Amino acid sequence: MQNIKPLSGFLEKLPEEQIIEEKFKEIITKNYSLSWFTPLDTPAIERVETLTSKWWDDNEIYWVSRLKWDKEEEISLWLRFDLTVPLARYVVQHEWKLNFPFRRQHISKSWRGERAQKWRYREFYQADIDIIWEEKLPLFADTEVLFPIYKTLKEIDFWDFVININNRKLLSGFLTEIGITNTLEVISVIDKKDKVKSIEPMLEELNLEKKQIESILELINVSEELNSRKALSFFEKFDNELLKEWLSELSYTYENLLTYWVEEKYIKINPAISRWLNYYTWMVFETFIVWAEWLWSISSWWRYENLCSNFTDKKFPWVWWSIWLSRLIGVLDSLWKIEPHKKTITEILVLNTSEDLLKENLKIVKELKEMWISTELFLDWTRKFAKQIKYADNKKIPYVMIFWENEKEKNIFALKKLETWEQKTFAIKELSKVKEVFKDIN
Amino acid sequence: MQNIKPLSGFLEKLPEEQIIEEKFKEIITKNYSLSWFTPLDTPAIERVETLTSKWWDDNEIYWVSRLKWDKEEEISLWLRFDLTVPLARYVVQHEWKLNFPFRRQHISKSWRGERAQKWRYREFYQADIDIIWEEKLPLFADTEVLFPIYKTLKEIDFWDFVININNRKLLSGFLTEIGITNTLEVISVIDKKDKVKSIEPMLEELNLEKKQIESILELINVSEELNSRKALSFFEKFDNELLKEWLSELSYTYENLLTYWVEEKYIKINPAISRWLNYYTWMVFETFIVWAEWLWSISSWWRYENLCSNFTDKKFPWVWWSIWLSRLIGVLDSLWKIEPHKKTITEILVLNTSEDLLKENLKIVKELKEMWISTELFLDWTRKFAKQIKYADNKKIPYVMIFWENEKEKNIFALKKLETWEQKTFAIKELSKVKEVFKDIN
Repeated sequence: MQNIKPLSGFLEKLPEEQIIEEKFKEIITKNYSLSWFTPLDTPAIERVETLTSKWWDDNEIYWVSRLKWDKEEEISLWLRFDLTVPLARYVVQHEWKLNFPFRRQHISKSWRGERAQKWRYREFYQADIDIIWEEKLPLFADTEVLFPIYKTLKEIDFWDFVININNRKLLSGFLTEIGITNTLEVISVIDKKDKVKSIEPMLEELNLEKKQIESILELINVSEELNSRKALSFFEKFDNELLKEWLSELSYTYENLLTYWVEEKYIKINPAISRWLNYYTWMVFETFIVWAEWLWSISSWWRYENLCSNFTDKKFPWVWWSIWLSRLIGVLDSLWKIEPHKKTITEILVLNTSEDLLKENLKIVKELKEMWISTELFLDWTRKFAKQIKYADNKKIPYVMIFWENEKEKNIFALKKLETWEQKTFAIKELSKVKEVFKDIN
Repeated sequence: MQNIKPLSGFLEKLPEEQIIEEKFKEIITKNYSLSWFTPLDTPAIERVETLTSKWWDDNEIYWVSRLKWDKEEEISLWLRFDLTVPLARYVVQHEWKLNFPFRRQHISKSWRGERAQKWRYREFYQADIDIIWEEKLPLFADTEVLFPIYKTLKEIDFWDFVININNRKLLSGFLTEIGITNTLEVISVIDKKDKVKSIEPMLEELNLEKKQIESILELINVSEELNSRKALSFFEKFDNELLKEWLSELSYTYENLLTYWVEEKYIKINPAISRWLNYYTWMVFETFIVWAEWLWSISSWWRYENLCSNFTDKKFPWVWWSIWLSRLIGVLDSLWKIEPHKKTITEILVLNTSEDLLKENLKIVKELKEMWISTELFLDWTRKFAKQIKYADNKKIPYVMIFWENEKEKNIFALKKLETWEQKTFAIKELSKVKEVFKDIN
């Protein structure tokens, strides 16, 4: 017999877990669509040169090939590791057929051959939105991608999140202003602030002056408070024109978010947030779950000034926001923040009483479906009622409907609520009122 | 600059085409769910030994590997070529956590490294439903998978399809009955009947008797008529117990379909349909588009008596139905059977009139969204109105809403229908009636 053990890092769900994932996807799609992001799918496979570049660790990419090669096919293909780089290629390829500003949504899988760890999968779903324009993308776009994310996260019945905002220029500007020259090294230490008790010793190792270290620790203190206006005012003491400009960009975005009816408690200006992948050039947003001990980001945002530079000389500024769907579900589930699992999408199981009554039972099923009630007829009339009811019980189907000889004679049907075992009978001609009947049964 | 040409066999859609694919997926999901098939996703990647077996051409499978191997990871991984074999592995792996009969739906991509040709893609979507039980699966299951497929195809605004049904045992039984011994060879000739003018010369080459050839041609004639009862009666003349049994299985399924309110014109008993992949052991269904010159199957059905035999000794009989989604869209599109393309999911573009009015305009957008109207605010108030309207026009957004100084003063907004250029103004407080306003404008 063949090995059927799961592959490490590849998620596989039970039906009741899958129902939750589908529900999440539905909420995301609805909110992305209401905010006019058009769905767009791209192939899972790209040419090697599309995916590789200086910014990516090639060892994490899965290489794809056919066992038998055709001469013409001797190009190297790789599985995408995100949804962004393929979109950059797509935008350049189809530029003349697209309308800019181009807004797209994409909920799909990517693959990364990293070492699998908790909530870091080798195959994972992410749910992206992007806005891309030619040459220039107004700062207002930064505000605008937030709205559907905020609406989605609120609707996912998950209220304790905080969207952290920063402008990277502000952070490096601040470091320059206090006289730091090894900015990159210092930022990589700041990035570790949530993983260690104090970064002070690490800053000391970098030979910073005492005063510089104090300033950095003060910045981190400010960033840990849930007070965005205080964070903004922290920078006001510096008399530096560039810092002032970047500060005004950040507060412009912050004020716009409030204008968009985003409640203040869900956003936080966090000057210590940074990301050092090469292609993020401007503002960064990160969303954390408040009550999680560990700060797993479950949704992130970046602006790129020119992501398409591998494919064209033309500039395509870009904002991108992603919900890390697989991780979000994993984290929420571990925190018991996901509703008790519904084991099925079926609302009513119609018992399959006998072959003679098949036509009548099928008619009930058909009519219930026409009322948009997901209805299942048990597959086999030779199985005993107890078996059929046990099946409904195992699957947590809430109602069972019975139509047998006795019911046929009286022109009624019986509806049983499995949780309470209560049963009511109703006239067949009143089948259309079944949703009211649901409420009648205790 | 890097090569951005599309990869042969990998579909990539424009936004207006993607909207159609999403619409199809929505219709399929709705009908599959109403028929109580639970959604279930499996990884795109499987172990080599899960996918390979005697029945598959290994050269068509894409092999997946990381550039840098870890010792523990030196297992060969391949991209799935269908959704069925991974499900067989899944069912055995999770057997004790599943409720049988297990019904699942899955709309997703698979990959086959075949030579790309028209409507035969290397990356493609299929939309599957499956029913699996332990040990024994009643013949009624064969009927039951049809209903959601039939409902789906009808709802896809695509009425000219015929679902062809056959019982393979019937075909080989018939050949045996007329004294044929090289059954497989003869069936492979019968399979070619739609590709050549006449298969008579090919049958002669197989050294069949004249009478045998006549019988086969008669069978093919019968199978080409749209008269299922005639096809059934064709077999009645044979006095063979096994043939009679198989015939009764086929007519049982046919009658059940009619019981399920499937209209007769959409199903056809076609005794000449066959499939010789090793794992299809019983009945076969194929769906063709009536008015297509070429008989591209766009949806198929099979029953397997034991698909899980690679993973367990236990028997899992199985019915499976798939809509070949990528191909269906390709064929319908080429036949102009797809509605004129909507270029966008946006219904209203709110012009971005000025920075001062941003808050008011955002309020309009927010309220429209709350009414479930997909509303877009143009991204940049510095662009001229003519540019903003041209954008709406290019994207075929039907309505434009204007709220500027003039409108603010009068407490109104203006709504313009781009097709007719007609414009009406309405009181701001009547925003909730915007859907009625749509109708008022010519």
